[in-house]
Amino acid sequence: MKNYKSASLIALFTLVLFGCQQTTKINNDPIKATINNSEDAKISQQLAQQALQSNLAYDLVESLTVEVGPRLAGTDKDLQAVDWAIHNLKSLGFDKVYKESVQVPAWSRGKAVASIVSPFEQPLVITALGGSVSTPEKGIQAPIIRFDTLSDLIAASNKDVEGKIVFIDHQTEKHKDGRGYGITVGARSKGAVEAAKKGAMAIVIRSIGTDHDRMAHTGMMRYQEDVPKIPAAAMSIPDAELINGMLKRDPNIIMSLNMSSKNLGVATSYNVIAEVTGHSKPEEIVLIGAHLDSWDEGTGAIDDGAGVAIVTAAAKLIQDLPKKPARTIRVVLYAAEEVGLVGGKAYAAEHSEELSKHYIAAESDFGAGPVYQIDFNVAPTSFSQIQHQVSAITQIGVALGTNTASGGPDVSMLPKLGVPVASLKQDGTDYFDYHHTPNDTLDKIDPKALAQNVAAYVHFAYMMAQSEVELRPLQPKN
Amino acid sequence: MKNYKSASLIALFTLVLFGCQQTTKINNDPIKATINNSEDAKISQQLAQQALQSNLAYDLVESLTVEVGPRLAGTDKDLQAVDWAIHNLKSLGFDKVYKESVQVPAWSRGKAVASIVSPFEQPLVITALGGSVSTPEKGIQAPIIRFDTLSDLIAASNKDVEGKIVFIDHQTEKHKDGRGYGITVGARSKGAVEAAKKGAMAIVIRSIGTDHDRMAHTGMMRYQEDVPKIPAAAMSIPDAELINGMLKRDPNIIMSLNMSSKNLGVATSYNVIAEVTGHSKPEEIVLIGAHLDSWDEGTGAIDDGAGVAIVTAAAKLIQDLPKKPARTIRVVLYAAEEVGLVGGKAYAAEHSEELSKHYIAAESDFGAGPVYQIDFNVAPTSFSQIQHQVSAITQIGVALGTNTASGGPDVSMLPKLGVPVASLKQDGTDYFDYHHTPNDTLDKIDPKALAQNVAAYVHFAYMMAQSEVELRPLQPKN
Repeated sequence: MKNYKSASLIALFTLVLFGCQQTTKINNDPIKATINNSEDAKISQQLAQQALQSNLAYDLVESLTVEVGPRLAGTDKDLQAVDWAIHNLKSLGFDKVYKESVQVPAWSRGKAVASIVSPFEQPLVITALGGSVSTPEKGIQAPIIRFDTLSDLIAASNKDVEGKIVFIDHQTEKHKDGRGYGITVGARSKGAVEAAKKGAMAIVIRSIGTDHDRMAHTGMMRYQEDVPKIPAAAMSIPDAELINGMLKRDPNIIMSLNMSSKNLGVATSYNVIAEVTGHSKPEEIVLIGAHLDSWDEGTGAIDDGAGVAIVTAAAKLIQDLPKKPARTIRVVLYAAEEVGLVGGKAYAAEHSEELSKHYIAAESDFGAGPVYQIDFNVAPTSFSQIQHQVSAITQIGVALGTNTASGGPDVSMLPKLGVPVASLKQDGTDYFDYHHTPNDTLDKIDPKALAQNVAAYVHFAYMMAQSEVELRPLQPKN
Repeated sequence: MKNYKSASLIALFTLVLFGCQQTTKINNDPIKATINNSEDAKISQQLAQQALQSNLAYDLVESLTVEVGPRLAGTDKDLQAVDWAIHNLKSLGFDKVYKESVQVPAWSRGKAVASIVSPFEQPLVITALGGSVSTPEKGIQAPIIRFDTLSDLIAASNKDVEGKIVFIDHQTEKHKDGRGYGITVGARSKGAVEAAKKGAMAIVIRSIGTDHDRMAHTGMMRYQEDVPKIPAAAMSIPDAELINGMLKRDPNIIMSLNMSSKNLGVATSYNVIAEVTGHSKPEEIVLIGAHLDSWDEGTGAIDDGAGVAIVTAAAKLIQDLPKKPARTIRVVLYAAEEVGLVGGKAYAAEHSEELSKHYIAAESDFGAGPVYQIDFNVAPTSFSQIQHQVSAITQIGVALGTNTASGGPDVSMLPKLGVPVASLKQDGTDYFDYHHTPNDTLDKIDPKALAQNVAAYVHFAYMMAQSEVELRPLQPKN
């Protein structure tokens, strides 16, 4: 109730500020909305109850992780995952199942070996960052230079960095909403470019993770055309601490690094799509997505087998209804999210003509922790109404949140193309303990929490497919 | 109080049963024992308080893990650890510091790579078991056969096992006292012999561990002269579960295994010894030990850097007393415990003449969790008296336990040679999560719990060095 009230106040405030910009029709009839809502809410609550009792999502993620496992974009395993998805979506009886080809960067991990040579010889546990080039065959041996943050590297003088291996030691804080990741991930994605600009030979960062396991966290890094490409890796958090222990004793640390990772050009992958055809507005789409690709070291259970399972199981419950909702439910299992939101961007381009018919979109890509809040990004004037539409979702532990949703990585480009989005925010307290490591395996998923996710998604999807609230136009971002 | 009472009852019962076997002199003067105890208890409690305030143990284990790190018996790093110990024990000002050479088996891990080839191609995370031979250079590819336990393997028919890779899938239960380990570890130590007897090509067990990290647990395995030596490895627990997932779908699983581990003969290592010379009975010894070697994948923090630090820091507090206790405190940092209690056996042989002068012995080798109970193995008639001697230890959370102590791995052979032992039992709930994995790193140690261990050891060591209770003869084991 408190959330609802404060959200209404925000909506009112926003209306005062931006209401004058509204130009398109908005269904502002509260009586009609309430009536629909009461019938629809009953069905969606029944669906949510069914979801809580169902093992389908767990069975799906178990199947994907056991029968396919790691499925790095552009590899044979990635194509096996596409086949797995087509097969399973067809078996589940969706009205339509199809795939759309996507060109994805292909990369091979190879080996990544590092050690401290002096002052104290010790092996390190590292992993190549996705997209990294190799070292020369004999490896690199160089002094390290440590920075607290990427900003500190950027502020450093070239002569301090030249010829060295950069070590960015930024600690990722653990938070329910995972906000620590956004603060530190720049070291991974941009560190190599910034280090190379100053003449570094390589970069080995503290893993972007919140655990204390001796596993390094991989993840995508980027090069820039006019800057030399240097090898980029991450070390486990205990290894970062080990180096800090050595630095207390001696500022002169020599690291040896040998990597054989390789960029392999472009490969073909697929966005896999399944649909429950809407009964009265079949051309209008409620998109619920997840990404099918994974990193290659775990089995891609929480990232993003869980999301694949959640949105598929939610749509299946709607598929099995005697009467389908008004709009079409479209499940999109995106290709190549990990290597640059490639499937998401391809979908937006491929479906550009149809985006005006996308009522709302949401992606599940934050593990399998329970959903605790639903955020929207809709017309400010419609925010309180759309919250009201889904208000029964609070019965499964989901609070009504803000109007600042990103929607998830593969739909994050849609709001600026006019498409409303929602974020069903999951408890990600432990997510960055396992993210992008060999530890991303099935045992990290709690079947009950997974089922609660399905309940939240089926409630959301059904209500959105029936909603008569006009969600556009979005408030332009500053 | 409850513990004390029940312990007394057990002692009384034991006295009734076994008292008639006592032949040597026993100090049964309760008044004298109590008077001594009251003065000694005051000093030992002061020592315990100092221990709780001191960072010495943490600083020592930090130093060992940062400056040496992994120190597999028979390697250069093992000798570095010996130098580290000699240097640090001398710096701490012990009355005597010396080393005794020990011949230890040398072994090199090499690589260990495995994957499931069919029905679903997936890489596995494995590690070679200590002492294992290699596979042929091209590796092995064979069907697997799964057993719940070592006993089930032993009961199997040769024709079911012949030509296969044996997979023993025994789950280790998590308990405070670590008793789950004793139940499952036979699969690791004896599995290769039992599998080879039936014609298996190799054995890859479920790790003897209680975690869900994708890390395999190494540890020693044994061969038998008349049985073929087959390669032996352990897989991580998520990998064991992955294979079980596959077995639900298809009983025919083909594994590929390639290992290059190698036995390298015999090398020289050292038991490192430091002493606080007793002031009135310097020839009588209270032995507190730990092992200096470690496995090679972590930095040997909990196994057994913690033990090294605990017993060293405890002895150092006694070294610094204005008046030393009656008996000598001997710190023994054993060589090559991991590869077969080699240092412990060598010590018992080297010091056989002197064992009658060992008043009591205890080893710290179960991580850095707090001590919650003290057990003894002393003459049954002396048990309640010796418990009374140390009863102030309850003030730091240590309960008075049983008269069934093993004393710890490297002193476990001493009771049958007549030497009383004690076990300061640590909370090992998480110990087998990290044991023998890359995760055995400094961050797994809580400095406060470590200091409590020092407090317990210093209390114990001081009281034993002053005790006038005759602890022999031990009750013969059935």
